[in-house]
Amino acid sequence: MTTGPAAKRRIAILGSTGSIGRSALSVVEAHADRLEVVGLAAGSNANLLASQIVQTRPRVAAMATPHALDTVRAHLAGAPQPRLLAGAEGLVAVATHPDVDILLCASSGTAALEAVLAAIEAGKTIALANKEVLVMAGAIVTAAAERKGVAILPVDSEHNAIHQCLHGRSHAEISRLILTASGGPFRSHSAAELKKVGPEDALRHPTWRMGRKITIDSATLMNKGLEVIEARWLFGVGPRQIDVVIHPQSVVHSMVELRDGSIIAQLGPTDMRLPIQYAFSYPERWSSGFPPLDLTRCGQLDFAAPDHKRFPCLGLAYRALGGDSSLPVVLNSANEVAVAAFLGGQLSFLSIVEVIECTMDANDAGNVTTLDDVRRVDRWAREFAQALIRDYN
Amino acid sequence: MTTGPAAKRRIAILGSTGSIGRSALSVVEAHADRLEVVGLAAGSNANLLASQIVQTRPRVAAMATPHALDTVRAHLAGAPQPRLLAGAEGLVAVATHPDVDILLCASSGTAALEAVLAAIEAGKTIALANKEVLVMAGAIVTAAAERKGVAILPVDSEHNAIHQCLHGRSHAEISRLILTASGGPFRSHSAAELKKVGPEDALRHPTWRMGRKITIDSATLMNKGLEVIEARWLFGVGPRQIDVVIHPQSVVHSMVELRDGSIIAQLGPTDMRLPIQYAFSYPERWSSGFPPLDLTRCGQLDFAAPDHKRFPCLGLAYRALGGDSSLPVVLNSANEVAVAAFLGGQLSFLSIVEVIECTMDANDAGNVTTLDDVRRVDRWAREFAQALIRDYN
Repeated sequence: MTTGPAAKRRIAILGSTGSIGRSALSVVEAHADRLEVVGLAAGSNANLLASQIVQTRPRVAAMATPHALDTVRAHLAGAPQPRLLAGAEGLVAVATHPDVDILLCASSGTAALEAVLAAIEAGKTIALANKEVLVMAGAIVTAAAERKGVAILPVDSEHNAIHQCLHGRSHAEISRLILTASGGPFRSHSAAELKKVGPEDALRHPTWRMGRKITIDSATLMNKGLEVIEARWLFGVGPRQIDVVIHPQSVVHSMVELRDGSIIAQLGPTDMRLPIQYAFSYPERWSSGFPPLDLTRCGQLDFAAPDHKRFPCLGLAYRALGGDSSLPVVLNSANEVAVAAFLGGQLSFLSIVEVIECTMDANDAGNVTTLDDVRRVDRWAREFAQALIRDYN
Repeated sequence: MTTGPAAKRRIAILGSTGSIGRSALSVVEAHADRLEVVGLAAGSNANLLASQIVQTRPRVAAMATPHALDTVRAHLAGAPQPRLLAGAEGLVAVATHPDVDILLCASSGTAALEAVLAAIEAGKTIALANKEVLVMAGAIVTAAAERKGVAILPVDSEHNAIHQCLHGRSHAEISRLILTASGGPFRSHSAAELKKVGPEDALRHPTWRMGRKITIDSATLMNKGLEVIEARWLFGVGPRQIDVVIHPQSVVHSMVELRDGSIIAQLGPTDMRLPIQYAFSYPERWSSGFPPLDLTRCGQLDFAAPDHKRFPCLGLAYRALGGDSSLPVVLNSANEVAVAAFLGGQLSFLSIVEVIECTMDANDAGNVTTLDDVRRVDRWAREFAQALIRDYN
């Protein structure tokens, strides 16, 4: 369509040293003629951030603490340095730098939420890989994005699949979103077996290689519950229009049922670089050097209904969507605390859901309408859940 | 979008008494507020056409022979009669009636091809369920449709699926079309077992209920071969961009691989009313009263590469696409003759492919550029194939 080279899309990444962040940088490298890094932010991995800065030459970079930033500075001694910042202020500076076209948010926590909101206000396209942003503040974030005319492109493989399935269709055509779930490592475990599983068992995910927190969420199915909440905000449908189906092979990434009963599905290799590239290139679609999916080698795809008895976290997520808008915040914050306790050996696998449910039962915060509300409910839920966990020990 | 009732879409159906035609009439009945029948044409089933005329009150109707038309007239004695015509002239009159918005072509043979071309010249939208039209005259028909700005909407479930998968996407995004094939009733038969199968065995199709000719084509995989040729013309891709995968459950109706490796698939119940309704409502999508597909009840979907040794018809279709444009005509005409001979007990199952291949080998017609060319090659191929079959007996 265009003659001559198109302007490069300028990318900022929150969470550049994590699994998604590193995949994103390899996408930028593979499409160096079309993409450019202008901002990077990381939590604590100063060594890796420093080498990413050397490699990509961003204009601004940030780390969670001034101490970590000092380590980055030491690594860069003598080399050209970007503007360097620490803490929440650093995240916002990276997210809103005037040169940024697309912000990939792949870091977690409420600090990222604030940075995403700032980026939306600054008119940046958001590529979203962080679940908390929409789980904790779906109404606030989507209202801001709509007001500013900013696109939120999902990078999670399931929501990315739905985005692809819905492309070119009107909202009125949607009958149902069908999120697929691998079922996690304990898909076939009995209730008795689930009592005994430890962190090492839970960290062996059958199809996706991901961070520790999300891998545990995948084992409890809370990951799918959080995705149900995300889907509600990303695609503007009601909770009853979102179903979950267990699909162990993770080849079908998700589906949309349209009003005539036709189902559109998106399939692909289990490689996060694909949805990241999709978000960076949208509405274009670029070639990728990846080997295509050969369905005849997959051979068989299975589908089953989720077992809500053995995996009650999924039901808690639907409950959170049906209640006050503080409940998804409580669900998410209590889950983070409970998963950390499980990984630290202070909580059994089955007690994760107990902690979340008790915290949800105790919540009386009503609706959240501002970022301050979100922070307050988040703080309360974390403290409440931590107190519960102390009682277990 | 519109206020007040929208104008009804006015439908003409070639082949109204066949399986597709009857499904189409039930779609019209289910959407009587949006659809209206203005023309009907059938081959020999005068009783059924007469009752369809009483029920739908078309403005014009046609049958293959004056004799069949007399039977229709006798049935309608006393009742209001549409304009009634016979033969090829009747087909064209139904297809081009000034009140027709959408022509559904579900009848077979070269007479239908002529009627479709006349409808394109008259600016009608074409809903295409007849394979021969594109197999025999793909270049001629698509060139005419492009010149007149007429849409050809595929009703075959596979091409309809691809049309749905491609909606809203640019041609440049297409990497590969993947047609699914049930594999037919002999999917697991050994070469030795295939020697002994008769028409009754072949007519037991595992997933779709269809006419006799297409059911045999499904058993030889020639049906899929013809669909490969159709896909080439409908979607403007090269033969190497069209793959076939065996999928016995027929739940995934077909797929498109995009340039980044992402695959979009369309799934649904095996009910022809869905693609027919899609074509009648496009670019809108209307609700259907059909029960939705429950993937957890399907449970398992299988995919395998086709076995070209046991099912060589598929390879013949690719060969036809790669050669002179007379070859697809020869393939299709020789196949029709061979299948009729098989159904009549004059030819064994494995000899179907031999007759087609010998006729293709003997063809020296070069390229076909006009409807007369098509007719001439069709006639030659039928005579040649019939002579071969006589030699078998």
